[in-house]
Amino acid sequence: MKFELHHASGPAGPRTGTVHTPHGSFPTPAFMTVGTQGTVKGVTPEQVRATGAGILLGNTYHLLLRPGPELLERAGGLHRFMRWDGPILTDSGGFQVFSLGHINRIGEDGVVFKNPLNGDLVDLTPERSIATQHAIGGDILMAFDDCPPAGGDDPAAARERSKLAMERTHRWLDRCVAFHRGRGRDGRQALFGIVQGGTDEGDRAACVEAVCSHDLPGYAIGGVAVGEDTAAIDRIVAHTAPLMPADKPRYLMGVGYPRDIVAAVRSGVDLFDCVLPTRHGRSGHAFTAAGALKLKNAPFREDFAVLEDACDCPACVGGYTRAYLHHLVKCGEILGGVLLTLHNLRLYQRLMADLRATIPGGRWDAFFSRWPCAIGPEEGQAADERR
Amino acid sequence: MKFELHHASGPAGPRTGTVHTPHGSFPTPAFMTVGTQGTVKGVTPEQVRATGAGILLGNTYHLLLRPGPELLERAGGLHRFMRWDGPILTDSGGFQVFSLGHINRIGEDGVVFKNPLNGDLVDLTPERSIATQHAIGGDILMAFDDCPPAGGDDPAAARERSKLAMERTHRWLDRCVAFHRGRGRDGRQALFGIVQGGTDEGDRAACVEAVCSHDLPGYAIGGVAVGEDTAAIDRIVAHTAPLMPADKPRYLMGVGYPRDIVAAVRSGVDLFDCVLPTRHGRSGHAFTAAGALKLKNAPFREDFAVLEDACDCPACVGGYTRAYLHHLVKCGEILGGVLLTLHNLRLYQRLMADLRATIPGGRWDAFFSRWPCAIGPEEGQAADERR
Repeated sequence: MKFELHHASGPAGPRTGTVHTPHGSFPTPAFMTVGTQGTVKGVTPEQVRATGAGILLGNTYHLLLRPGPELLERAGGLHRFMRWDGPILTDSGGFQVFSLGHINRIGEDGVVFKNPLNGDLVDLTPERSIATQHAIGGDILMAFDDCPPAGGDDPAAARERSKLAMERTHRWLDRCVAFHRGRGRDGRQALFGIVQGGTDEGDRAACVEAVCSHDLPGYAIGGVAVGEDTAAIDRIVAHTAPLMPADKPRYLMGVGYPRDIVAAVRSGVDLFDCVLPTRHGRSGHAFTAAGALKLKNAPFREDFAVLEDACDCPACVGGYTRAYLHHLVKCGEILGGVLLTLHNLRLYQRLMADLRATIPGGRWDAFFSRWPCAIGPEEGQAADERR
Repeated sequence: MKFELHHASGPAGPRTGTVHTPHGSFPTPAFMTVGTQGTVKGVTPEQVRATGAGILLGNTYHLLLRPGPELLERAGGLHRFMRWDGPILTDSGGFQVFSLGHINRIGEDGVVFKNPLNGDLVDLTPERSIATQHAIGGDILMAFDDCPPAGGDDPAAARERSKLAMERTHRWLDRCVAFHRGRGRDGRQALFGIVQGGTDEGDRAACVEAVCSHDLPGYAIGGVAVGEDTAAIDRIVAHTAPLMPADKPRYLMGVGYPRDIVAAVRSGVDLFDCVLPTRHGRSGHAFTAAGALKLKNAPFREDFAVLEDACDCPACVGGYTRAYLHHLVKCGEILGGVLLTLHNLRLYQRLMADLRATIPGGRWDAFFSRWPCAIGPEEGQAADERR
């Protein structure tokens, strides 16, 4: 993997670039479409490609359990299995193990959790996460980190747990790096480190130093949008991103709403992923430049406009009205979720394309007049939406 | 609507033809793809068109309840609402009212049933069914008939009920014809009558006489595949179809498996509809020329072949393996149902195309060597699959 920086607006400002991987290149800032269990829910890879997506995200936690790394290896890797020939990034499984809540034991070696499908105990260590990611065959792999939930009732205990997690994450990163070295499809798979540190700026700075002491092809900011409010997300990202190496891509994991993404891009972040466009699509929500629409609501029953006049997604170009989408959502018809997913994915790609076009000239007023949804905080956007 | 007969293999044999409607023409024998509530479940009209489908079926029962005829009229009719510009046939709602079981009262005037969505009582009469079908705006409308479930514990009572249903169906047909006359988009909507009569050949013959005494543009055989076995279906169809006017399309409602369709085509039936390809697709079944595959089964876990080598559907051409489909079905991923639906719909269209090509030359041995699935009875195929 190589990162080519095209434009940087100062050390702490927005940047444009290109990421080159063995499965092709894509421009940054980029939104990575989430395909958790080997599929972007409800849509074909061809349809995903047509939204403008340059890279997909797969999930080690889910793929480890089903279909399992042995089968994926026999299938020739995830690219071949799911018929997506573009770049793939795999998450390490760390976040899911900690957030999906079937943990049996956490120790220095790794995590033991109960397989929710059959009750078996599964051992997930830094080495096993990386080995699984090798089997999956993604172009970018993520280090396995300790990511306990933010906060808690006892601040002192939470602080203690957070400190332990940081230190352990660094020891686990050492192990990930050591295990990955010389493996991973002859060095064609790139390992990214993850900066933790919660909402404390000092901790974030210390993590950047520890993680970036490894010369890796990219680095991520983890532990963001795990329950804190929008202001805290903005503050931590604006603090952390500029501390990270300028010549490597910076990936803000699991974020977020259009406005969160725009704010983070302006702080120098290059890569994003989030389940919002797909999950909200399936639950009957459309993102638009003007804000979100909840199609189930009564006013849409007789609204014969398309979602957005200016949109070139299959739902808008196809002429499907809000009234029709309301009908599909009310009936629980699959096609409603499919069309809204396609629209939302395309909207995110349109947003990223406009960000990339705006960064060199810096005409942000004009940008925000096109994207009112990116201006203010929106209700509920701090919710954990990564999975 | 006009029916053009191209080839007829004698008075009781298979035929080919073309149906011309205000929304286009399609060749017969034809399989009509079911789009119950204004959508073919999980797939876009564009994808449906690409399977080779020439005509869709909508359902008056479901569309009456949601979104309702007033909204459909305001939307410009179902074609415009769902973005399908080809021919549409609408079922009358009779079958659903009787089979979905929320009946409050059946009388000479019509049926009163409880709206399962809100508990309101809904009056469905022959006139209201036709008026609703006018609002939906389909190209072919079906008469509203009395179709009680077949059989029952008391043969004498069942016989009595069946006789009443037949007679009432004929009185209701008179009312449908009278109400339809001069209405229905200036005569651009064609009303078909339905021949009932259960499994009794004499009753079927009497029904043909009564129904076909109305000069209608087409006629259907109803009350088939409502619980009786394959031999009974074959016998009744082979008896009834040749009694119906040769110059009008003959439509066997709600049938069925590939072998049922092939048998009925050989008895002179022209039109079919069935939820099997879509419903079985969503439940993880693939139809193939060699027979059905239940993708959830363990042997498919490591089967890296596509569903059918010779198939040109998006699932087979896209290279999605049985192992991948197994994975999607096991995970309950929407894409599994979508890909299997596309495959199954395409298989049904390939079957119909091969039937149309085979009929003129009559090379049935060669046909059956290509379609082993159409030879013998299959388990469970007598189940009611129309809805």
